[in-house]
Amino acid sequence: MASSSGAMQTDVFQMGPGTLSISRADLHRPIQAKVRERCRKLLPEAQHGVMLLKGGGPFNLYSTDMEGIFRQESYFHYLFGVEDEDFYGALDLRDGRTMLFMPRLTEAYAVWMGEIKGPKFYQQLYSVDAVHYADELASVLKSLRPPALHMLHGKNTDSGTTTEEASFKGIEDFSIERDTAFAALTESRVIKTPEELRIMQYANDIASAAHVEVMRKCRPQRMEYHMESTFLGSCYAEGGCRHAPYTPICASGPNCAVLHYGHAGAPNNREIQNGDMMLQDMGCEYYSYDSDITCSFPACGRFTEDQKMVYNAVLDAHISVIAAMEPGVSWPDMHMLAERCILSGLKAAGVVTGDIEEMLEKRIGALFMPHGLGHMLGIDTHDVGGYGPGLPERIDKPGLRSLRTARVLEPGMVITVEPGCYFNPCLLQPALKNAEQAPFLVKERVLSLMDFGGVRLEDDVIVTETGSQSMTNVPRSVRDVEAVMAGAPWPRD
Amino acid sequence: MASSSGAMQTDVFQMGPGTLSISRADLHRPIQAKVRERCRKLLPEAQHGVMLLKGGGPFNLYSTDMEGIFRQESYFHYLFGVEDEDFYGALDLRDGRTMLFMPRLTEAYAVWMGEIKGPKFYQQLYSVDAVHYADELASVLKSLRPPALHMLHGKNTDSGTTTEEASFKGIEDFSIERDTAFAALTESRVIKTPEELRIMQYANDIASAAHVEVMRKCRPQRMEYHMESTFLGSCYAEGGCRHAPYTPICASGPNCAVLHYGHAGAPNNREIQNGDMMLQDMGCEYYSYDSDITCSFPACGRFTEDQKMVYNAVLDAHISVIAAMEPGVSWPDMHMLAERCILSGLKAAGVVTGDIEEMLEKRIGALFMPHGLGHMLGIDTHDVGGYGPGLPERIDKPGLRSLRTARVLEPGMVITVEPGCYFNPCLLQPALKNAEQAPFLVKERVLSLMDFGGVRLEDDVIVTETGSQSMTNVPRSVRDVEAVMAGAPWPRD
Repeated sequence: MASSSGAMQTDVFQMGPGTLSISRADLHRPIQAKVRERCRKLLPEAQHGVMLLKGGGPFNLYSTDMEGIFRQESYFHYLFGVEDEDFYGALDLRDGRTMLFMPRLTEAYAVWMGEIKGPKFYQQLYSVDAVHYADELASVLKSLRPPALHMLHGKNTDSGTTTEEASFKGIEDFSIERDTAFAALTESRVIKTPEELRIMQYANDIASAAHVEVMRKCRPQRMEYHMESTFLGSCYAEGGCRHAPYTPICASGPNCAVLHYGHAGAPNNREIQNGDMMLQDMGCEYYSYDSDITCSFPACGRFTEDQKMVYNAVLDAHISVIAAMEPGVSWPDMHMLAERCILSGLKAAGVVTGDIEEMLEKRIGALFMPHGLGHMLGIDTHDVGGYGPGLPERIDKPGLRSLRTARVLEPGMVITVEPGCYFNPCLLQPALKNAEQAPFLVKERVLSLMDFGGVRLEDDVIVTETGSQSMTNVPRSVRDVEAVMAGAPWPRD
Repeated sequence: MASSSGAMQTDVFQMGPGTLSISRADLHRPIQAKVRERCRKLLPEAQHGVMLLKGGGPFNLYSTDMEGIFRQESYFHYLFGVEDEDFYGALDLRDGRTMLFMPRLTEAYAVWMGEIKGPKFYQQLYSVDAVHYADELASVLKSLRPPALHMLHGKNTDSGTTTEEASFKGIEDFSIERDTAFAALTESRVIKTPEELRIMQYANDIASAAHVEVMRKCRPQRMEYHMESTFLGSCYAEGGCRHAPYTPICASGPNCAVLHYGHAGAPNNREIQNGDMMLQDMGCEYYSYDSDITCSFPACGRFTEDQKMVYNAVLDAHISVIAAMEPGVSWPDMHMLAERCILSGLKAAGVVTGDIEEMLEKRIGALFMPHGLGHMLGIDTHDVGGYGPGLPERIDKPGLRSLRTARVLEPGMVITVEPGCYFNPCLLQPALKNAEQAPFLVKERVLSLMDFGGVRLEDDVIVTETGSQSMTNVPRSVRDVEAVMAGAPWPRD
C-alpha cells in the first residue's frame, strides 16, 4: 500500500483495502513492449537508440509558495507509472531494457517529505531493469552507445500545447531524434491494453456509484456545489480517487445549457429550484486513468412532460450510437446519427419542423448540440491521438468542428458517447431571426423551452472486436432514474 | 450569489445560504486606499502614476488539454477581488481611481462558459470606477498621461519565484517603474484590515468544525485519506469552501514525524492502527483567504501516558506562545520560547537531560522541532512579507533557519502558532551518535519513542493592540479532546 510504510517493496499500487490493486509489471511491461515495437517499425534498424522521457516536477501557483499536489506527466505515467517528482525514464529500443533516473535528495527531504529511498527500492516499486541518479544520465547513456536519443516532441491537438523534451548536462554529445517517440507513444495510447481497461472500468464503477449517490441526495433548495461535494467525497472515500480529472459540472436549470459550467467564474453556486433539470458531468481518476460520466435528471425526482421529451430524444441518440459503434465506423458518422435521433425527437414533439436530412445538411442539429459527440478517454480526459498525420482531418462545420477526433473506430479505443440537447439563448435567439435556420424552428415551442437548460447523457465506451461495450453503469431510462431517485436499489442486480 | 444567474449585479460575493457574504466595496476599497497611501509615501509626488497589475489566466497541466480550476493571482485578488480570467487592473495613485481591463470574448465563450457580461456588469460586480477591454489598455492609459506605470516586480521569499509583470502592446510608450508596487502591496498584505480578518475568522470557523468532524470519525482500520475526504467534504458542503489552500496532511503513527506528509509520493494512504497518534494539518479557503489548522489526537480516542506527555509538552508551548504574543515581540524569541516549553516537558518525562539553556544553545530543540514556529497567513498560506529590505534577517541556525519570518510582531498581523514535537529517526539516530548532542538525550527513552511519530498544534492567531487572539476553535486540552472524540458537544456550551 503506502510506499511510506517502508515494509512493502512490491510493484503494486493500491490506495486502500477494497480499492483496485495494480501490478506495475502487468500494466507497464506490455505497454513498453508495444511502444518499442512501434518505434522499431518507424525507424531503420541502425537508428534504434534509447527513448528518453522527462517526468513531471513540482509547480507553484504563480509566484506563491503554494505547490499543487504533484501529478505525473501523462506520457511518462503511461510508460513508467512513476508517482514521484523529477524522474527521467529511458527505454532502450534495441533490447527493451528500462531505466529510471531519480533525483539525488538532500537530508532535508527526509525531514519534510519522508524517508529517502534508494535505487533498489524504486527498481522494485516501478518494476524497471535499473535505477540510477539523474546526475548520472550522461555517463549511463554514453555507456549504452545509442545511435540516437529519441525525444518526445509533439503538439497536443486539443490544447495546442507542446510536450517538454528531456534535457541534461552533456546532451550535446548525443544525436537527437524527435520524430518517433511522440508518434509511437500517442498512437499506442489510443488503443488500450486489457490492463488499462481494467483500471478504467474501476474508475467507471466508482464514478457511477457516486453519480447514483448524487441523484439520491439531490433536492430543490440545496446548492449545486453540494452535488460536487457529494460526488468528490464518494469517489475519494469509497474508491481512493483523490483527484477529479476535470472540473465538475454541476448545473441546474438554465445553467445546464452552458457546456463547461462549473468554472471559477460560475462555480456551481446556484440554488437548485423545484422544476429544474440537473446536468451532472463528473468523473474520477485512479492511477491517473479517468472516467467521464454525465447524468441528467429532474431535481425533484419526477420528470415533467417536456423534460421527458428532451431526455428521451437524447437517450435515443445515446442508445443508437452505442448500438451502431463497431470497428470501421467513422466517428463523424456517429455524430450525425446522434443529431438525427435528437432532431427526430424534437420534431415529434413539435419543436422543430421540416425534413430531417435537410436539417442535418443545414446544421440545425448544432443549434441544439454545439459540441462534439465524444472524445477519446484514457490518462487524459481529452485523450491524445484525435488528429494527426495520416488521420481524417477536422471537419469545419458547426458541431462537427468541435469533434476532438474524426477517426475510424478500432478495437481497444475508448471514447465517450455524450449526445446532448440544449436550449441556449445565445444560439437559438439569433437562429430564430436567421432566414436559413428559422423555418426549421417552431418559434413558440422554442421560446417556451428557452429556460429549459439541457440534457447530456455520457458513457465511456470501449470499441470491441465486434461492436462496443459501455463501462458506465448508471440509471438511464426515465423509469430507472425516477425509481433510483425514489430509493430503489442500483445496480438492479 | 451566482453571478451566473444574471439577476444580481451587486458587489457581493457569497457561495450559498449560510455562507459568508462579502461586499467587495467594503473589502477592497480600504485596501486600495491603504496601498495607494503607501505608494505615495514611497514615491516623489511628480512620479505618482498608475499601478498596473496583470490578473491570472488559465493554465494547462503539462501539454494536456486539462485546465485546473482557475485561481486568481494573489496580489491581483488582494487589490481587485476579480474571479475571472485574463483581466488587468489599474489603480491611479493620483486620484485613487480604479480600472479593470477585461478580455474581449468570442461567441464560443457564451456556448462553453456562459453568457458574456459587459463592462457595466463587471463595474458593479467588482466595484471599480471603470471597466474597459484589455485591447484598450494602451489608449486608456495614454489618455491618463501618467508619469510612470508602476509594475509588480519582486520575489517571494518562501518560494524564490518572481512575480509576472503586466505587459501589453504599446507599453514602450510609457515610463516603467518597478520598485514601488511590490513593496507597497507586500507590506500592506502583512497587516490585515478588519474585513480581511472577518473572512479569515470564517475560514477558521469552517475548518475548526471540519477538524472536529474528523476527530469524531477517526477509527483504527480506516485509511488516512478518509480523514482528508471527511475534512474536504465538510468544508465544501458546510462552508462553500471549494479549495484546500495546501495539500492536506493526514498522518497516522510514524508518519506524523514527516512534516509535509500527504504529498503524491506518500498520499495519506496508510491504514490507521490502534495506538497511533494522528496529526491532521488541514485548512480551507474562502474568497481566497486561508485557514491553516493542525490537530493531534489518539486514533482510538484515549491518550496513552507517552502520548499525553508529548502532547502536553507541545500544548504548553502552544499556550505559552499565544499568551506571550503582543506588538513588539520578536518572532524568533517566540520560537525559542516554544522550544523551551517542549524541552522542559521532555526533560520532566526523562527523554532529555541537562540544562535547558544549554540545550537551547546547542539547538537540541531543533532535533524535536525542525520547522519554524509559524508563518504569516492570509491570501497565501505562507503569506508574503516574511523577509525583505529593512526587516530582520533569516537566522542561520537549525530550526530557526526554517522560520518564514523573523519579524517583530505588529497589530493586524496574522501568524500561525504551530509548535511540534516529533521523533524522526533521520534526525535522532545520528544525534544519538553525535558527541555534542548525545549527552542531552536519554538513549533508551528516545529509542522507545522512535516510532511515536509526533504532535503539532496549530492555531491562526491575530496580533492585537494589546496581545493576541486566536481565530481557531478546536478542542485542545487532553480532557476536551477525549470528550469530543467520545461525542461531547463542541463548542462546549
